[in-house]
Amino acid sequence: MLAIIITIMVLELKVPHGASLEVLTPLIPVFLSYVLSFVYLAIYWNNHHHMLHTLHKVTGPILWANMHLLFWLSLVPFVTGWMGENHFAPRTTAIYGLVLLMAAIAYFMLQSLIIAAQGPDSLLRKAIKGDWKGKVSPILYAIAIAVSLWQHWISIGLYILVALIWLVPDRRIERVMGE
Amino acid sequence: MLAIIITIMVLELKVPHGASLEVLTPLIPVFLSYVLSFVYLAIYWNNHHHMLHTLHKVTGPILWANMHLLFWLSLVPFVTGWMGENHFAPRTTAIYGLVLLMAAIAYFMLQSLIIAAQGPDSLLRKAIKGDWKGKVSPILYAIAIAVSLWQHWISIGLYILVALIWLVPDRRIERVMGE
Amino acid sequence: MLAIIITIMVLELKVPHGASLEVLTPLIPVFLSYVLSFVYLAIYWNNHHHMLHTLHKVTGPILWANMHLLFWLSLVPFVTGWMGENHFAPRTTAIYGLVLLMAAIAYFMLQSLIIAAQGPDSLLRKAIKGDWKGKVSPILYAIAIAVSLWQHWISIGLYILVALIWLVPDRRIERVMGE
Amino acid sequence: MLAIIITIMVLELKVPHGASLEVLTPLIPVFLSYVLSFVYLAIYWNNHHHMLHTLHKVTGPILWANMHLLFWLSLVPFVTGWMGENHFAPRTTAIYGLVLLMAAIAYFMLQSLIIAAQGPDSLLRKAIKGDWKGKVSPILYAIAIAVSLWQHWISIGLYILVALIWLVPDRRIERVMGE
Repeated sequence: MLAIIITIMVLELKVPHGASLEVLTPLIPVFLSYVLSFVYLAIYWNNHHHMLHTLHKVTGPILWANMHLLFWLSLVPFVTGWMGENHFAPRTTAIYGLVLLMAAIAYFMLQSLIIAAQGPDSLLRKAIKGDWKGKVSPILYAIAIAVSLWQHWISIGLYILVALIWLVPDRRIERVMGE
Repeated sequence: MLAIIITIMVLELKVPHGASLEVLTPLIPVFLSYVLSFVYLAIYWNNHHHMLHTLHKVTGPILWANMHLLFWLSLVPFVTGWMGENHFAPRTTAIYGLVLLMAAIAYFMLQSLIIAAQGPDSLLRKAIKGDWKGKVSPILYAIAIAVSLWQHWISIGLYILVALIWLVPDRRIERVMGE
Repeated sequence: MLAIIITIMVLELKVPHGASLEVLTPLIPVFLSYVLSFVYLAIYWNNHHHMLHTLHKVTGPILWANMHLLFWLSLVPFVTGWMGENHFAPRTTAIYGLVLLMAAIAYFMLQSLIIAAQGPDSLLRKAIKGDWKGKVSPILYAIAIAVSLWQHWISIGLYILVALIWLVPDRRIERVMGE
Repeated sequence: MLAIIITIMVLELKVPHGASLEVLTPLIPVFLSYVLSFVYLAIYWNNHHHMLHTLHKVTGPILWANMHLLFWLSLVPFVTGWMGENHFAPRTTAIYGLVLLMAAIAYFMLQSLIIAAQGPDSLLRKAIKGDWKGKVSPILYAIAIAVSLWQHWISIGLYILVALIWLVPDRRIERVMGE
């Protein structure tokens, strides 16, 4: 489903009227917000895929925690388009961060349920160890939302920072799984 | 295909013009109808997936019963958008319920065909036992449609109630399959 | 890819403005053309799926014959929307038939290549035997296109007739494969 | 994801108002650009699929090289629509070529990483041998971009030429894999 969400998102890049390069100029912020969200959704795609691979039994709560995560991620194209079309205006940047924050919380809940289901020898728990990325990201999102109405470029900087932190896929999982 | 329908549905949440929070206000009913339909489609996705897992031989009638179900579910984004954009107006709420009712009937038909194909030892029949959810849902939808032109908020309440009834995935299937 | 094409097609059913049932009236032809195309694409989905199952080695020509089929099927949402929005006007009905005709020819080409690749003991050749459906459909489409500018309701009748002919999935394939 | 991108692209073929054949005339360039991009994306789909089949271990860099390729390919519907709606105007043809060039570079990077991960006995390296197609395509794209502002029909000719070069799927891979 993440592949579909990413592809749907490109529809927010509306084909402009006119054939000059100037008509592309107003699309630059929409394009930049598309790039940022593409990276975020790609990160979720990779880590989500790796995480579900460590899973052997699916329970009802895990299933719904997964749906909860997909719900927030399904809103990413909407908030991306809104933020891009409004040139990263303060309120749009705040709402963008809110959706990222909710997705991060949903991811954390899903992860916790999978670890609990796997019991004390949880492969996933070993893999993510302290999970500092999972803990620091919501804090950075919360700061970004808080400062967005006042200094929204700092918010954008924080969103980029969190993306960079995660850009290295969870090779911790690969390492543990390869043992 | 259900993953695609869910993702397509978010396109009804049109990006508004303007960067203030006020422009989001008219989107609230569209968003709420999106949430309701997301939950419904997620329930169908889970239960449909579990049900098809109990299936070993696919016959022509099962195939077409499945297509019949997907047909009604494919109309969910349309009726969701219509109901949301019109703030749950009576007639839109009735049509929304009609599509849910048809999907429930299609699901029941598919389920019956699978049970018949599996013979007297049907795993699915054991799993769903009396199938009270499958029986009570169409009745609640029918009531919701009937009262919608008169008290449409009761209809919405009934749609939420049916969703809550199903929110627990058919762990009966999981239980029997795990034996 | 056929699942995606079907789901994309529902986007041609644009959510109308207004909450009365009257606003749905102009959508009736769009809805009917959607139903017809849904049935066609579902038939292709089933038979295509069955046909590819009989295939063990994929060659370059088979791959491109498959892409050629998907190309024509990808145009179905466009011609469906155009025909529906124009209330089955003569020229739109002709173009709709043209796309169906090209898809039927592409399907026949793909089928022939698969049979040739499977050699004299081709499972698929046994399964489709004389393939009267595959032979009669293009003829009916050609007649439908020819009469459409003059009696376009006959054309629509012929499209429905071909769909009904194919509605029984190719159980011939199932039978041979089950032996 | 490539199947989804192809299908999304057909949405750029907007259903015209009016039921005469004349309303289709302005769509001809959009249709032709759709055909060209359909062929390109189908080529990528085939070769990408074959290439990933030679892969046994996925590393972080391979994963991100793959996402990088998908990013540029996800922009194909946008540049296709823009070029088609503007009747292959010089600047739109240049930007179209730019996206193709970036995708070709991304494909080359992904291929190199896979070969490196497979070590000296790389199946993929044997399969692609000198990889003259992979080397000549970016050069032709670069020429096409350079001449587009001056003789954009030569650019279109070059895009068609590159597509024809690749239209034969990488049977080299099939041959080596079949040994």
